[in-house]
Amino acid sequence: MTFSTQRRVEFRDTDAAGIVHFSAFFPMMEAAEHELLRSLGIPVYPTPAAGPEALTWPRVAASCDYVAAARFEDILRISVEVAKIGSTSVQYSFRFTRDDQLVAQGRMTSVCCRLAAGRSSSPGQFSGGLEKTPIPDAIRDLLAKHS
Amino acid sequence: MTFSTQRRVEFRDTDAAGIVHFSAFFPMMEAAEHELLRSLGIPVYPTPAAGPEALTWPRVAASCDYVAAARFEDILRISVEVAKIGSTSVQYSFRFTRDDQLVAQGRMTSVCCRLAAGRSSSPGQFSGGLEKTPIPDAIRDLLAKHS
Amino acid sequence: MTFSTQRRVEFRDTDAAGIVHFSAFFPMMEAAEHELLRSLGIPVYPTPAAGPEALTWPRVAASCDYVAAARFEDILRISVEVAKIGSTSVQYSFRFTRDDQLVAQGRMTSVCCRLAAGRSSSPGQFSGGLEKTPIPDAIRDLLAKHS
Amino acid sequence: MTFSTQRRVEFRDTDAAGIVHFSAFFPMMEAAEHELLRSLGIPVYPTPAAGPEALTWPRVAASCDYVAAARFEDILRISVEVAKIGSTSVQYSFRFTRDDQLVAQGRMTSVCCRLAAGRSSSPGQFSGGLEKTPIPDAIRDLLAKHS
Repeated sequence: MTFSTQRRVEFRDTDAAGIVHFSAFFPMMEAAEHELLRSLGIPVYPTPAAGPEALTWPRVAASCDYVAAARFEDILRISVEVAKIGSTSVQYSFRFTRDDQLVAQGRMTSVCCRLAAGRSSSPGQFSGGLEKTPIPDAIRDLLAKHS
Repeated sequence: MTFSTQRRVEFRDTDAAGIVHFSAFFPMMEAAEHELLRSLGIPVYPTPAAGPEALTWPRVAASCDYVAAARFEDILRISVEVAKIGSTSVQYSFRFTRDDQLVAQGRMTSVCCRLAAGRSSSPGQFSGGLEKTPIPDAIRDLLAKHS
Repeated sequence: MTFSTQRRVEFRDTDAAGIVHFSAFFPMMEAAEHELLRSLGIPVYPTPAAGPEALTWPRVAASCDYVAAARFEDILRISVEVAKIGSTSVQYSFRFTRDDQLVAQGRMTSVCCRLAAGRSSSPGQFSGGLEKTPIPDAIRDLLAKHS
Repeated sequence: MTFSTQRRVEFRDTDAAGIVHFSAFFPMMEAAEHELLRSLGIPVYPTPAAGPEALTWPRVAASCDYVAAARFEDILRISVEVAKIGSTSVQYSFRFTRDDQLVAQGRMTSVCCRLAAGRSSSPGQFSGGLEKTPIPDAIRDLLAKHS
């Protein structure tokens, strides 16, 4: 079961070549990943209430292949599949299409992390306090729905 | 004494009209403000070591008037002046020029804040824990050098 | 009649203070302006087919006042009003709210332009070929619906 | 001979996790690629004066692996190597380091293109008019200096 969402290209996503800047596909992938997580009821980002069990998913790899140019106002469909679930990481694959034309395809790998106990409370120190942790079974089962 | 810095327009700053996107001037102003603070020895952002006396400068207003288009690879000179120092806020004015041509001029107002004592240690909760505080005299004197 | 739209804050819009970066409000205003134009049937950006009558709306001024912090995943309502229609320019005012709390308010002024006849066909030279032109009555009437 | 440049992390490059957003590494790679081209005297982007021989280098692939978090104000060294020169494409590899610590490494593949003769002069239509072309020997020799 492939999860999919769509968005219209905004002007800020374009560049002086008149097309969507290649880097703009990455935040679009991230937003699609977050929508998928949200649709499964998996919290995207730890909140104060979440406590020590809170999970977060920093990215360790991202890539994109560009097949056709996308332009301002294009409506892009973004399909997300869970390509691989490891013990502590999940790899997503993405397809951007416009009508039925493939525009780009990408991959991102996120690692399941817990906020470490003694972590600093200072702004900007968040990631220093992350600890890789096995993906809980309940979340693994949810993610598997889109694999 | 006007502080000034320069930067070359990068491709990501442009849009499909072939010019620098209007929103891209704001991070350029912020970076110039930060350079000015750094040049004066004023910390830009609180670090763990800074303790409860750490100051931070959230923005309450920003504006820009666009006079001429800037393009990819243009070298922009950005001049910063301290336009006004209030009891808890500082207003900067900015001029973007290319050679001697005025490209844009902007303003930003930042408020002097202290991290509040009981603030949450959760990521994303930083600003909730800010308290407006009078600009210390030592910093006021430093800023006044560029007014 | 106020036009309004909403969007969820994406992770790329945030900064290390844990809040939406002040500059990120500007592309959100632009996207809301474009949605308003689209809803009225006014083309946002000239296409090849549009010919010499094509209009485009470069920005000459933008400003924003920040009232409360917005955070990742917040759903922001963005209301747009046509604050003023001059002979060649239109000023929009924007209000960002979360639930009923005011988060930010901004203004942007766009100028009605025509692609000039002899303009260069080179990429990145688009704006050099713009000529200010009176807002056509049909468009003025449409915009007036939201004033 | 590895080309290298450095830049200080700006606030807009960070996100609510307190670190440089993963997508921000891509514009940094592009800017480093452009600096390398400029240092070799290779034009980065076609200008009106460049005529039909003008070359441009759209990207067909980009990837990045994230090894350590980078934070606001970090000074990153970015090394660029020409990893591979094909008949019509060039692959660059990038290393981001802070002091001697590896922060991230990436790759980008750009294709040598010529502006096609009958291309539309409309904004936003630039890429539609691109034609893949063999990398000229003079440019190949220059690029080879950094392989």
